[in-house]
Amino acid sequence: MASPVSPSVGTFHPVGIDAVTISDGFWRERQEINGRTTIAHCRSWQERLGWINNFTLVAAKGGGTRQGREFSDSEIYKLLEAMTWESSRPGGENHEESVAELAAVIAGAQQPDGYLNTRFGTPGESRYRDFEWGHELYCYGHLIQAGVARLRTGHDDGLAEVARRAADHVCATFGDTGVQAICGHPEIETALVELSRATGESRYLDQARLFVERRGHGLLAEGEYGTAYWQDDVPFRDADALRGHAVRALYLTAGAVDVAVETDDTELVDAARRQYDAAVARRTYLTGGMGSHHQDEAFGEDFELPPDRSYCETCAGVASIMVAWRLLLATGDERYADLIERTLFNVIAAAVSEDGRSFFYANPLQVRTAAAPADPDRVSKRASAQLRAPWFDVSCCPPNIARLLASLGTYVFSTGSGGVQVHQYMPSRLDTLLDDGRHLVLSVDTTYPLQGRITIRVEQAPAGRLRLDLRIPSWAEGATLDGRPVTGNVASVEREFHDGDEIDLVLPVSPRVTVADDRIDAVRGCVAVERGPVVLCLESVDLPDGQPIDGVRLDPRLGVADRDGGAIGHGHLITREPARWPYPSDPTSRTGKRIEVPLVPYHRWGNRGPATMRVWIPADQRS
Amino acid sequence: MASPVSPSVGTFHPVGIDAVTISDGFWRERQEINGRTTIAHCRSWQERLGWINNFTLVAAKGGGTRQGREFSDSEIYKLLEAMTWESSRPGGENHEESVAELAAVIAGAQQPDGYLNTRFGTPGESRYRDFEWGHELYCYGHLIQAGVARLRTGHDDGLAEVARRAADHVCATFGDTGVQAICGHPEIETALVELSRATGESRYLDQARLFVERRGHGLLAEGEYGTAYWQDDVPFRDADALRGHAVRALYLTAGAVDVAVETDDTELVDAARRQYDAAVARRTYLTGGMGSHHQDEAFGEDFELPPDRSYCETCAGVASIMVAWRLLLATGDERYADLIERTLFNVIAAAVSEDGRSFFYANPLQVRTAAAPADPDRVSKRASAQLRAPWFDVSCCPPNIARLLASLGTYVFSTGSGGVQVHQYMPSRLDTLLDDGRHLVLSVDTTYPLQGRITIRVEQAPAGRLRLDLRIPSWAEGATLDGRPVTGNVASVEREFHDGDEIDLVLPVSPRVTVADDRIDAVRGCVAVERGPVVLCLESVDLPDGQPIDGVRLDPRLGVADRDGGAIGHGHLITREPARWPYPSDPTSRTGKRIEVPLVPYHRWGNRGPATMRVWIPADQRS
Repeated sequence: MASPVSPSVGTFHPVGIDAVTISDGFWRERQEINGRTTIAHCRSWQERLGWINNFTLVAAKGGGTRQGREFSDSEIYKLLEAMTWESSRPGGENHEESVAELAAVIAGAQQPDGYLNTRFGTPGESRYRDFEWGHELYCYGHLIQAGVARLRTGHDDGLAEVARRAADHVCATFGDTGVQAICGHPEIETALVELSRATGESRYLDQARLFVERRGHGLLAEGEYGTAYWQDDVPFRDADALRGHAVRALYLTAGAVDVAVETDDTELVDAARRQYDAAVARRTYLTGGMGSHHQDEAFGEDFELPPDRSYCETCAGVASIMVAWRLLLATGDERYADLIERTLFNVIAAAVSEDGRSFFYANPLQVRTAAAPADPDRVSKRASAQLRAPWFDVSCCPPNIARLLASLGTYVFSTGSGGVQVHQYMPSRLDTLLDDGRHLVLSVDTTYPLQGRITIRVEQAPAGRLRLDLRIPSWAEGATLDGRPVTGNVASVEREFHDGDEIDLVLPVSPRVTVADDRIDAVRGCVAVERGPVVLCLESVDLPDGQPIDGVRLDPRLGVADRDGGAIGHGHLITREPARWPYPSDPTSRTGKRIEVPLVPYHRWGNRGPATMRVWIPADQRS
Repeated sequence: MASPVSPSVGTFHPVGIDAVTISDGFWRERQEINGRTTIAHCRSWQERLGWINNFTLVAAKGGGTRQGREFSDSEIYKLLEAMTWESSRPGGENHEESVAELAAVIAGAQQPDGYLNTRFGTPGESRYRDFEWGHELYCYGHLIQAGVARLRTGHDDGLAEVARRAADHVCATFGDTGVQAICGHPEIETALVELSRATGESRYLDQARLFVERRGHGLLAEGEYGTAYWQDDVPFRDADALRGHAVRALYLTAGAVDVAVETDDTELVDAARRQYDAAVARRTYLTGGMGSHHQDEAFGEDFELPPDRSYCETCAGVASIMVAWRLLLATGDERYADLIERTLFNVIAAAVSEDGRSFFYANPLQVRTAAAPADPDRVSKRASAQLRAPWFDVSCCPPNIARLLASLGTYVFSTGSGGVQVHQYMPSRLDTLLDDGRHLVLSVDTTYPLQGRITIRVEQAPAGRLRLDLRIPSWAEGATLDGRPVTGNVASVEREFHDGDEIDLVLPVSPRVTVADDRIDAVRGCVAVERGPVVLCLESVDLPDGQPIDGVRLDPRLGVADRDGGAIGHGHLITREPARWPYPSDPTSRTGKRIEVPLVPYHRWGNRGPATMRVWIPADQRS
C-alpha cells in the first residue's frame, strides 16, 4: 500500500497515495506550493549549508569539515521521503531525479557493515558513543521511512537498499543479544515496523518491539532535563501521560502503536491510547498544538497551557497527526480524525507561510511584541522572536511539513467496516478497491471549511450494498445529512448506490465562541472564536492604528458574525493610567470604548508583516 | 562606612553594619541561622565539590582536575563577603579564621600581573578568550566586593590586597586604550565603583564607567539568546526596559547607578530609574520576583508574568534589592524601600529553608505537581522540579543570600534630610552619628509584620531638632502615627526629642485581597491575598485530603480573616466530569461545594514536605 502507514490489521485500512486526488481548494493549493516550492527550497538550503556534502565528505574519507548539527542527515532523509510521496501523488511534481542524485550521494557514505552517519563513525568520533544526543538511530529511522516510501511507490532502488542495509545493521547490533541500548530520540521504532510491513521481514518488527520495551528502564543518562525528557523514566506500557520532549514522546507513541497493532498487544495499544488521550484532554492547545515549554521543548503539566509561551513545535504537530492517524486506523474512533483536522488547519497550515518559503518552528497562540520579519537569506534560531523564517539551525520542521503535505491524500479516506470512510472533507476523488475487492470511485465536492456544504458523489458504485461512514466533527452541532439532523461522531449510510448518487452533508461552520476548562489557568476569563475546524485570532494589523491588542476585550453576548472566512465580534478597548505597581488596590480604574473585534484564521497570521496576535481574548469583564 | 554600598553623595546615606543590631524577630532568626548554619553549609559544599581546591591546583601549576563551572570562583568570593559582614555585625558569628584560610588559598593562585582565575589563564585555556561566557570579569567583581567588605570592616589584609591587585590588572588591561571588551555577565561595574569609594582611587570608577558605556554596542556575540540576553543590544543610557537575563540586567543597573551617582551623571541615573521603574510596573511578580522565562532566565515582555513558569531567580531578588537600595539612597523615594521589603519577605525569605540548609533557585508562584524533597546529599539542577535543594550545579544563590542576610542591618536605616530614616521595621537598635555629627541612639520595638504596631524609641536624643522619616508602605491604608492618620509614602516627625521619647506607628496588616492589572494575562480572574508585606499562598498540605488545589475558588465577597500570620478565606471546591477535550462547548458543567480556604505566608511554603501551591487563586466565577 503506497501510504506512509500501512498496518496489517485494524478497524480501518489506509488507501494508497495513488488512489486519492485532492482536486481543489485549500489543501490542493498547499500541496502544490509544497511540491513546487517548499521541497526545492529545502533542498537548496540543505545544499547551501553543506548538509548534503557531509555525505560526500564521508565517502571521500577525509578532507573538508562536516557542517550542521549531529542529526542533519535526517533532514535529507525526510526530504527524500517528501520527494517520493510528491512524485507519486496524482498531479504531483516529479522529483525522481533529485531522489536519484541524493540517494547516490548517501549510498557512498554507507559503511560496509551498513552503518551510516556523517557525524559519527569516523576516526575521533566513534560510533554509538552518545545514545542520549547522538541521534544515530533517529537518523536511521528517517532513512528507513524514506526507504519504505521508495518501496511502497514501486521503487526498489538504491535508497531502499541503503535503508534495508542500515536496518539490518541495526538488528545485528542492537538485537536481543546485542548492545542493550535505545536512542535518545525515538523514531526508529515506527520506521522499523513500517519496513517490516513493507518487506514482510519480521526481524524489523522484533527489533522495534525491543526498542519500545527497553525504554523506561534508565538506559539513558539523566541529562540536563531528567530521564522523562526522553521517556526513559517509566516503561511505555506503564505510563499514564505524555511527558518530556513532545516530539520524542509522540514519535515513541506512534512506534508503540505500530508494534502493538502488529503483535496484537492490546495492553500496549491501550497504553498508547491512555497516554495520548490524556494529553489531548489536558495538555493540548486549542490549535491541536502540543508542548508548553520552550526550555526542553516539552509537555507541561496537566492544564499548563500558556498561550504566550506555547511551544507547539511544528514537528510535534506532525507527530501528533502520526499518532492520531494510527489510533484512528486501529480503533475506528473518529475523534482522532477531528484532531488531525484541527492540527492540520491550525498547526501545519500555520507553520508554513503562504508562499511556502518560510516556517514557524514554534506556534504560539499569543504574541505580545511585533516580531521582525526574518531575513530570507539567513538561518534563524529555533524559537526566535521572528516571523516565519526560511531555515533554522535545527531545521527538522520544514521537511517534516513537506513529507506530510505531499502524502496528505492518504489521510483523507480509509476502507473498512464493509465500506469506506471519509475522514477529511476537501474537494477530492477516491478511486480504490474496497476490502472485499469491489471497485469504488467517490468524489467530494465542497468549499469547506469556507462553507459547510459537502457533496459526496458515488461516481462508480460497487455492486451490492455500500457503507459510507462520514465523520461528524465534535463541534458540528446541527449537522445534517440530506436534510436530516445527525448526531454523534459518525454519520453512516448503508445501502445500494448507483453511479452518480449524491449525499449532502452540511456542517455548520458559523463562528462560535469557545471557552476553556477553567483549570487552564493561563486563559481564564478569556474566550476564543472558532469557525468550523479553523481557530481564529485577533491580529494587530486588523485593528485601527493605535489600538493596542492587549486592550481589546470581547463581549460574547454581542455575538460573533461571519466575515470572509473569519469573524467580527464586538467589545471594548480598555486603557489604564500608567501605574508604578501592577497589582492595584483599585481594580476599576480603567476606561473603555466600544470597538469591533475583527478575527482572522490563525493559520493566516503573520503573512502581512510584523504584528501582535492573540487567539484567546479576554472576555468583557463588565458582564 | 562599613556597608556594601556607600555612595559619596545622595539623598540618604547608609549607616555602617556596626551601627545596627537586629535584636529579635523574623529577621534576627534568619540572620542567626544564616550566620551559624548557611555560611558553614556553603563552605562545606564548596570544599566537597573541589571548588576551593581549584585555587590550590592553580597555585601548584598542574596536577589534578579543575572542578565546577567556569564561574565557581565567584561563589567562594561571595561567601567571603558574607563571612566578613557576618563577623562584623553586632552579635554575628566570627568567621575570620575561615576568611584567612580561604584568602591564603586564593592569593596563591593569583598570577604576578594580578590575573586570577582557576579556569582560564592556564596552558590550553588562555585568558580572555571568551568574554561572552568566560565570566572572568564577573569573578573579579565578586572578588572585589569581598575585598571592599574587608577594607570597610577594618581589615586591610591579604584578601583586600588580592582584590586591589586584580582591579589594577583590570584597569591596566581594559582601560581606555586597552582591550575594548566587556564581560558577558555584568558585576564588575558596581564592584569597581565601591572599590573606588573604599580606596579613594578614581581609576576604578573610570574603569567602571568605561564598562558601562561600552555596553550596548555589540561587543559581545549574539549567542544563543541574542545580544539582549547580556544587555549588549542597546547602550544603557538609551534603553527603556530591563531585558534579557534578569540577574545580568539588574547587576548592570546597580553598576550604572553607582557610576552615575559618583560622576553626577543625571542622564545615566535617569536611565537606570526609567528601566527599573518600568520593570517594577510591568515585569515584576507580586512577590517582587523578577524573570519570567526559564530558558534564558530572562525578563519577559511587559505583563508576561505567568505564576507557574515564573523564574524569579533568587539571585535576581538579591540583585533587585541592590538596585532598589541604590535608587532609594540616590533619590529618597521610599517606594524603593517598599520593594526591598516585599522582595525580602517573599523572595529571599522564601528561597532559603527554615533550617538554612536548602534553597530555591527559582521561586515560582504556582506549583502544580508536588515536588519531591531534594536529596540533602546531592547537587541539584537549577530549576528542577524539586523542593529546596542543598546545592546546585550553578550555585550562585546560596552565597548570595548569605551575604545579603549577613549585611541586612545596613538596609534598615539611613541618615539624611537632617535626621534619620527608618526604611524597614523590625526589632532593632541604631547607634549612629547623624550627618551633622550629632549622636543618636534609636530602638524599634515591634512584632511586625505579625502585628502592625511599631514603637520607635529615641534612646539617646541628639541636642536640637531631629527629623525622623518613617516609611509608610503603599499598601498601608489607614496607617496611624501616634493615633493620627498618615498618608503618602513617608511620615515625618521633626521636633526636639528627649531620651526615651516614643513614637507609635501602626500599619494595618490585616489580610487584604489583591487583584492584578488585567493586562497580566496569566492571572486574569484570580485574586491573591496579602498580609502586610507578606504575600500569602494556598498550600495543598493545608487542604483536607483529596481536595485538589486547582479546584479551589476563592470568593472575595466572603472576606478573608486573619489566622496565625496567614488568613482564612471562603470559596468553593469545583469538580468536573472528565472530558476528552478541554475546550468544552458547555462551560457550566461543573459542581462546587463550599470550603474554607486556608492561606499561609508564601515564604513558608515547601517546609512541610511535598505540596502543590498557588499564590493567585481563581476568584469564584459565580459572583
